[in-house]
Amino acid sequence: MGKKLTKRNEDYSKWYNELVVKADLAENSGVRGCMVIKPYGFAIWEKMQAGLDKMFKDTGHQNAYFPLFIPKSYLSKEASHVEGFAKECAVVTHYRLKNAEDGSGIIVDPEAKLEEELIVRPTSETIIWDTYRRWIQSYRDLPLLINQWANVVRWEMRTRLFLRTAEFLWQEGHTAHATEKEAIEEAELILDIYADFAEDHMAVPVIKGTKTESERFAGALDTYCIEALMQDGKALQAGTSHFLGQNFAKAFDVKFATKEGKQEYVWATSWGVSTRLMGALIMTHSDDNGLVLPPKLAPIQVVIVPIYKGLEQLEIISEKVSPLVKELRKKGISVKYDDRDTQKPGFKFNEYELKGVPVRLAIGQRDLENGTFEVARRDTLEKETVKMEEVVAKIEFLMEDIQSNIYQKAFDFRAEHITEVQTYTEFKKVLEDQGGFISAHWDGTNETEEKIKEETKATIRCIPIDAQKEEGKCMVTGKPSNRRVLFAKAY
Amino acid sequence: MGKKLTKRNEDYSKWYNELVVKADLAENSGVRGCMVIKPYGFAIWEKMQAGLDKMFKDTGHQNAYFPLFIPKSYLSKEASHVEGFAKECAVVTHYRLKNAEDGSGIIVDPEAKLEEELIVRPTSETIIWDTYRRWIQSYRDLPLLINQWANVVRWEMRTRLFLRTAEFLWQEGHTAHATEKEAIEEAELILDIYADFAEDHMAVPVIKGTKTESERFAGALDTYCIEALMQDGKALQAGTSHFLGQNFAKAFDVKFATKEGKQEYVWATSWGVSTRLMGALIMTHSDDNGLVLPPKLAPIQVVIVPIYKGLEQLEIISEKVSPLVKELRKKGISVKYDDRDTQKPGFKFNEYELKGVPVRLAIGQRDLENGTFEVARRDTLEKETVKMEEVVAKIEFLMEDIQSNIYQKAFDFRAEHITEVQTYTEFKKVLEDQGGFISAHWDGTNETEEKIKEETKATIRCIPIDAQKEEGKCMVTGKPSNRRVLFAKAY
Repeated sequence: MGKKLTKRNEDYSKWYNELVVKADLAENSGVRGCMVIKPYGFAIWEKMQAGLDKMFKDTGHQNAYFPLFIPKSYLSKEASHVEGFAKECAVVTHYRLKNAEDGSGIIVDPEAKLEEELIVRPTSETIIWDTYRRWIQSYRDLPLLINQWANVVRWEMRTRLFLRTAEFLWQEGHTAHATEKEAIEEAELILDIYADFAEDHMAVPVIKGTKTESERFAGALDTYCIEALMQDGKALQAGTSHFLGQNFAKAFDVKFATKEGKQEYVWATSWGVSTRLMGALIMTHSDDNGLVLPPKLAPIQVVIVPIYKGLEQLEIISEKVSPLVKELRKKGISVKYDDRDTQKPGFKFNEYELKGVPVRLAIGQRDLENGTFEVARRDTLEKETVKMEEVVAKIEFLMEDIQSNIYQKAFDFRAEHITEVQTYTEFKKVLEDQGGFISAHWDGTNETEEKIKEETKATIRCIPIDAQKEEGKCMVTGKPSNRRVLFAKAY
Repeated sequence: MGKKLTKRNEDYSKWYNELVVKADLAENSGVRGCMVIKPYGFAIWEKMQAGLDKMFKDTGHQNAYFPLFIPKSYLSKEASHVEGFAKECAVVTHYRLKNAEDGSGIIVDPEAKLEEELIVRPTSETIIWDTYRRWIQSYRDLPLLINQWANVVRWEMRTRLFLRTAEFLWQEGHTAHATEKEAIEEAELILDIYADFAEDHMAVPVIKGTKTESERFAGALDTYCIEALMQDGKALQAGTSHFLGQNFAKAFDVKFATKEGKQEYVWATSWGVSTRLMGALIMTHSDDNGLVLPPKLAPIQVVIVPIYKGLEQLEIISEKVSPLVKELRKKGISVKYDDRDTQKPGFKFNEYELKGVPVRLAIGQRDLENGTFEVARRDTLEKETVKMEEVVAKIEFLMEDIQSNIYQKAFDFRAEHITEVQTYTEFKKVLEDQGGFISAHWDGTNETEEKIKEETKATIRCIPIDAQKEEGKCMVTGKPSNRRVLFAKAY
């Protein structure tokens, strides 16, 4: 465990980095920019995967798996796509090592050079649309609704655990449709799934919107996104869903015969969320004592710590605890009884607080006498004494209550950090003083967006989908605008 | 669907290749040696993953995730390990593409050369043991029981869908222990899990054994394996579990403080099964009509096909089918009601036969009149008429019966194809005439093993764990031997 966690208000960034490592979520590896996801962190990711995977399948999507490698020529086929990814590609050029003839060790065998270089996928549109050309002939083959869970690589220069790593895990959906309308509806359906998942499972409130042209995915006609707000007032893009038009169908010549027998290009979407969600989860809820996890994603939902002197007393406690553990497990609640005798209760309390276990039960001599447990909730750090016969109901209540309480807390924080401004001066002051989302009028041009970014580091996070029409003037140029957009500094 | 499947006795290899593609399991991609796993094939793999993952977790293993890339220097640290993998490594040498100055297109940016080349993991011992050095200090940190589900790359020159591909999916377990005994027990525990999974879930009988020195994993002191027999008389290695001794702990300097305060090197195992299991599954059970799937792994366990004239009749049928579908789903049986009006019943029958759906129900005019379904089982192709009120019980029975029937069929086939021989002449004749496993005495030397391999293409598949001691003479050299080993030609 070592020394205490840095406090958020001392150094938020340091707090985050320390927390990820100390709570056993992830750590940097010996490979530049690549992380190791530790078992406790991976167990949270597995719960996220399971939740999302069910939502995808319930809406008719199927999983498949496409190659890790993309021939360079494939990536080059869609012009704006390669433009977007060329600067951060890991490139495989050889397929063999050998012993150096001068005895200097193992070297790349120069004779095993690939005819065409392979790119480690930064995203799979190109290899997938090359495949779809074989799969799609007729309107009967559509829609094609496919997802894959995979690793991808983008050679980032500055990396941070979960938030930006050279390799990360994600899911990428790639769908094909007969009409533009259907494809747009799919992109919007997925956006709703992402938002529901973030809010219901992660307890992270998000704003749904579309990206401006300059922030769109390389190759998309429209990018939908969900944006969350972190406790330091910075925004985090938590998921994106792209309407790709016919760009990839044209690049890879994917046509289908309509009912009427005409040949038309297929319409596409792609969409993804990644291990970045772990960053959003951590930064939304956690506090100076450590992680705070929503019960729906906590690998351990309840921990029970015995407080005892001598093994005889431990045995008596264990007898009381054993039926409770069984009952909780029967109800699908994951529970850990930590009877290690190598650590003191205080050490264990700190450890589970750091790891964000939603509910902690303790039981000692007095509890044995009174037939009670001490029940502590991680979100508010409140403790109370609960009768043994009421403890299961209490825990069931807390599973719901903690989930909704941390959502509400995050929701209230965000509500306090969305500020409407009229002028650029006001904008800069709010950005400086408290950050958060700033709702402002913008003239719709790249130039103004770029100027604001350069001068303040704030970007347009999204054009909110539920924004009301409102006549106004761009805060920078004074040109007319008909609705507000959301700015923020962002991860 | 296209033309009929090649028959097994005409060309077994062609039959397999066609079946994998026609049954929508997988296909070759545009990337040499890399496959696309199609949704139907991936759904089977997901069921395999779920079954194995539960068995690993029930025995105390946790999942984690380690980097895709391995620095060349890591791979080189364990001498026999790098020796084993150097010849088939995909090597990343650059991290950026750019536009060629002469306008010839996108090229690798020569200025973005990595200081040290990265190998796309062929297996993860080295990167994981580099990590374990940070995780293991004391006996309290042991055992460390970790698994990862991942993609790996081995640059194979001759590839076949599922059986041998440049990229494949697998799980790799990597455990660390305080004692040699514990590590060996772990390797054996995993072997049992693999065997149980193969037999209980896949309905594939396997023989447990150990590999000879020349067939061991690169870096292992002992390799345990499960070997299955395919219908063409060739063996297939379906899973391996390695006792690694202290080789990787020494290469990566991973020591722990014992209870007594001494510093000792850690003991290791690693173990894996891959998408190769798909090949074993397909080749063990399938027939000239297509795939035969065990109910436990079938993505669709029951398909219902309506036989109707006109939409009115379809509606009447659908009303009869709808409560059945609900009841089956409630019982956890996956069922598909195929009421597509774009295809005839006969076409659908062929399709589900090809795809190995264990049970097919059909319902037409006469069934409506009599209150019956026609129930067909895929394994024996038998059909019978079953009263509506008995159909659920019938299906539940068939789920069990098909699972055990195909296991028994494969078991009997294998029993008929294990032959004990005394002489090398006999050995060659059996190998030629019927293949299968051949049980023979061997003098225990690499030389003899190599000679047999060169002359007959048969290898020692394993030294069976349950083999009885039996004094005998090596069939080739006449030197003494104290137990028989199993030879076969293998995939």
